[in-house]
Amino acid sequence: MIQLNLEDSNDKSNGAFYFNSEKVLCTGQIQLTDFLEKHVMNSELPDSEEIILQNINELVPYESKLSTPIYIYSKKRLVYNFLSYKNSFKEELTDQLGFQTNISFSIKANFNPSVLKVFHENGSWASLVNKNELLLALKVGIKGDNLIFNGNGKKLSEIDLAIKSGCYLNIDSLFNLNHTIKVAQKLYQNEDLRNKFPVKLIIRVNQTQNAQVHQYLNTSGDACKFGVQENQVDNLIEIIKSNSNLVKLSGFHSHLGSTIKAVDIYHESVKNLVNLVNMTIENHKIDSLEIINFGGGLGINYERFASNTSKIPKVELKIPTPRDLAKVIGSHVTELKNKNIRIVVEPGRSLVGDSCILLTNLLGLKQNENKNFLVVDSSMCECLRPCLYSAYHHIDYVKPLNQNGPRELVDVVGPVCESGDFLGKDRYLELPLISENENASIYLAIMDVGAYCSSMALNYNLHPKPSEVFIEEDESTNGSKSEVKYILTRRPDTLENILGSFTDFF
Amino acid sequence: MIQLNLEDSNDKSNGAFYFNSEKVLCTGQIQLTDFLEKHVMNSELPDSEEIILQNINELVPYESKLSTPIYIYSKKRLVYNFLSYKNSFKEELTDQLGFQTNISFSIKANFNPSVLKVFHENGSWASLVNKNELLLALKVGIKGDNLIFNGNGKKLSEIDLAIKSGCYLNIDSLFNLNHTIKVAQKLYQNEDLRNKFPVKLIIRVNQTQNAQVHQYLNTSGDACKFGVQENQVDNLIEIIKSNSNLVKLSGFHSHLGSTIKAVDIYHESVKNLVNLVNMTIENHKIDSLEIINFGGGLGINYERFASNTSKIPKVELKIPTPRDLAKVIGSHVTELKNKNIRIVVEPGRSLVGDSCILLTNLLGLKQNENKNFLVVDSSMCECLRPCLYSAYHHIDYVKPLNQNGPRELVDVVGPVCESGDFLGKDRYLELPLISENENASIYLAIMDVGAYCSSMALNYNLHPKPSEVFIEEDESTNGSKSEVKYILTRRPDTLENILGSFTDFF
Repeated sequence: MIQLNLEDSNDKSNGAFYFNSEKVLCTGQIQLTDFLEKHVMNSELPDSEEIILQNINELVPYESKLSTPIYIYSKKRLVYNFLSYKNSFKEELTDQLGFQTNISFSIKANFNPSVLKVFHENGSWASLVNKNELLLALKVGIKGDNLIFNGNGKKLSEIDLAIKSGCYLNIDSLFNLNHTIKVAQKLYQNEDLRNKFPVKLIIRVNQTQNAQVHQYLNTSGDACKFGVQENQVDNLIEIIKSNSNLVKLSGFHSHLGSTIKAVDIYHESVKNLVNLVNMTIENHKIDSLEIINFGGGLGINYERFASNTSKIPKVELKIPTPRDLAKVIGSHVTELKNKNIRIVVEPGRSLVGDSCILLTNLLGLKQNENKNFLVVDSSMCECLRPCLYSAYHHIDYVKPLNQNGPRELVDVVGPVCESGDFLGKDRYLELPLISENENASIYLAIMDVGAYCSSMALNYNLHPKPSEVFIEEDESTNGSKSEVKYILTRRPDTLENILGSFTDFF
Repeated sequence: MIQLNLEDSNDKSNGAFYFNSEKVLCTGQIQLTDFLEKHVMNSELPDSEEIILQNINELVPYESKLSTPIYIYSKKRLVYNFLSYKNSFKEELTDQLGFQTNISFSIKANFNPSVLKVFHENGSWASLVNKNELLLALKVGIKGDNLIFNGNGKKLSEIDLAIKSGCYLNIDSLFNLNHTIKVAQKLYQNEDLRNKFPVKLIIRVNQTQNAQVHQYLNTSGDACKFGVQENQVDNLIEIIKSNSNLVKLSGFHSHLGSTIKAVDIYHESVKNLVNLVNMTIENHKIDSLEIINFGGGLGINYERFASNTSKIPKVELKIPTPRDLAKVIGSHVTELKNKNIRIVVEPGRSLVGDSCILLTNLLGLKQNENKNFLVVDSSMCECLRPCLYSAYHHIDYVKPLNQNGPRELVDVVGPVCESGDFLGKDRYLELPLISENENASIYLAIMDVGAYCSSMALNYNLHPKPSEVFIEEDESTNGSKSEVKYILTRRPDTLENILGSFTDFF
């Protein structure tokens, strides 16, 4: 009789592979297709999906070791996205208007340290919301004075750590200011910390305009928990002034929401914030201002391929680019010239969202009279956005099935025991065969999962968080071919990872 | 100058405490209040909230070591809930009608091994949906033939493990049956496995009635990914019959949804399933049937205290009890008497939901002209249900603030950087002082978080999953006082737990 070996849960096929600390999975060559060639000729970076899909064929043999689902990133796309911000802000605001500018990556969008490292190597600051994100940023090597500590609910111990690290500290409420002063008072008794004082504060102002996004992605207006109302700002400034040995006002901040699709929405908030800075300098005679932080929130075009596989009409949705945002800002900041004020933005989604796909294996086709289901091995656990925000993620086969059959209406669903576990509804996709042997090597790609997917992943149903792989192209490209490496940046969870904290598990 | 020590991330205040493998936190005594006394006199178990809140005062000194948020369970309530099912099913169905009955805990509701252990010690089976849940159940000591492997998307390797373990295997679709036969074929070549064949299959039938619950909690109807339509059953049975050396039909299963509040909803589904069993025996001459599994889904009364702190009216909502469910089943199964068919139900929420509260510390009160926010240190990460399903969880102070002030309308929100991060909206609660020193020791309790909270927890914003503590009463109670122990069943995540799988973190 066969003994069931619980050690199997270690999934040795993975373990043996990872624990030799080998990170490079394999190498290969990118063959530029006509599609890519055309884009490159136009000096536009091709969609990262294209880069990734071109390379998946080389990665798939590793599936037996890695096991799907897998997040696969294009490092080139991460760099491109960051430089789009950095360069357009430099050109529009530094070269033309003389402002220093900084791009500060919002860690909450994706906390894979390899992602943060790529941005850091290109000069990124980081915006964060708690102690753990702060420790991650410091570990990756970002200096304290390039960090902005946001968040509406900071513990005293977090404020303490933020001050010691030399971060800019966002002030989100009156109690947040009171707590910060209290912690500073205590810390200041330590002479060694003298150079950290006064603590650099940035007041977050809760703007009133409508960001026109999902209610959960809206972070402005009266019903919003973030920031202080404009009419509370004077009071906060008075408190800051009367504690000038401990804290100073370094700037203002606002953030409207996330997935913003119209640049016009920024006009009013930029104007308001600039006014606030001017009035503060005039009315309060404050000369410590050094930062104006316009937040993040630019959307990405999740639906750009949607008309291929759904009834969503093909519209030329013009998502604002980093340059569009820089221009909006540029059109309102002239009054601030020569005041030594640095312009900061905090993108998250638009830096990382389109850099990654989720590779998933088809488990089977299920049909009833009214509905077809493609059951795949990824789920709401790896991509919660469809369930949580009714968000669209484009889904297609990695290779066309080549059946020349008609496309049928399907729902793409995962194996999690919950009806909210779907990845896409009402898509037109070719149907695979139902027979038992044919589907094992059919893969689908869920697009644009770089932001708020891995960072919001669940272990619901004890689902392991999956591996994450970077596709890196060699810098020294040679004609139309470039060497690529496949780098493992995250090992998938083992059962021990998931349950190791429970005292009755071992 | 002070050097920032990244080892701080280990949170030694916790670490030192846990790593001596001390699980008993402290002991104390339950003082029965009038409220409890009254309930006990009525032979009804008091609300676990009352038991827990009575004991929190002794636990709070440990907060500095444990740090909030903390899930706190009443072990007594877990046992009581399980025995309510077990005893009423025994009385209604075994004693009166002669059926064997089994209660099979749905692990997905809560995968804390200590919870599963409590149920197992009282005779529970377990229902599970993938390999990891299977390994957990086996590790806790539940035998394979007391396990039901459900799920709409099983990998071949999972089917393989399930067969080796001797589980009942749910058949959710045609492809699922084909895959199972394929795996069985391969395994059967191994003589040592002979006693596992034929594999015991349970067909899940997708019923058509409306469960009257949130769309994500509905698991029946045409648009649902679970189960097979009734008109597909004959075809499946033919395939099973023609592979009778490999698989046999052991039963039928249906599950309507979760949070069901009216027992009437079960009538039709029970009747249908009983008919199906009868017809299968008659038409297909199948004598291998041994199980009829009516699924789970009973709701709990999340809103029973709601009128205290909200405008939700006090209605005497009569949530069906386990006995109500047993009676409904009993009223339809007489035709199955003496056929050696075992009745199984798979509760999750109703076994564990009301056994647990989430203890959270108040970080501060935030006010704008139109809105008050109580900002606490727990979040959507520990309790996703309000954000995901607009679910109500009752929230109140652990101790009344005693300010005799009026109750004001507040939103209770967490520190996560997302507007969906709320725990309760539009509640009437006393307002704490805004001054900086007063709030540190104010705790709130979020009620009824035993089901689908810890098991759906996120590490979004790098939030650590919190500790879980059991309150255990000594068996030998003495008058109105009983000895209690506080048992640590889960250590909170460290940053290393959360980021240890990333190759660029270390």
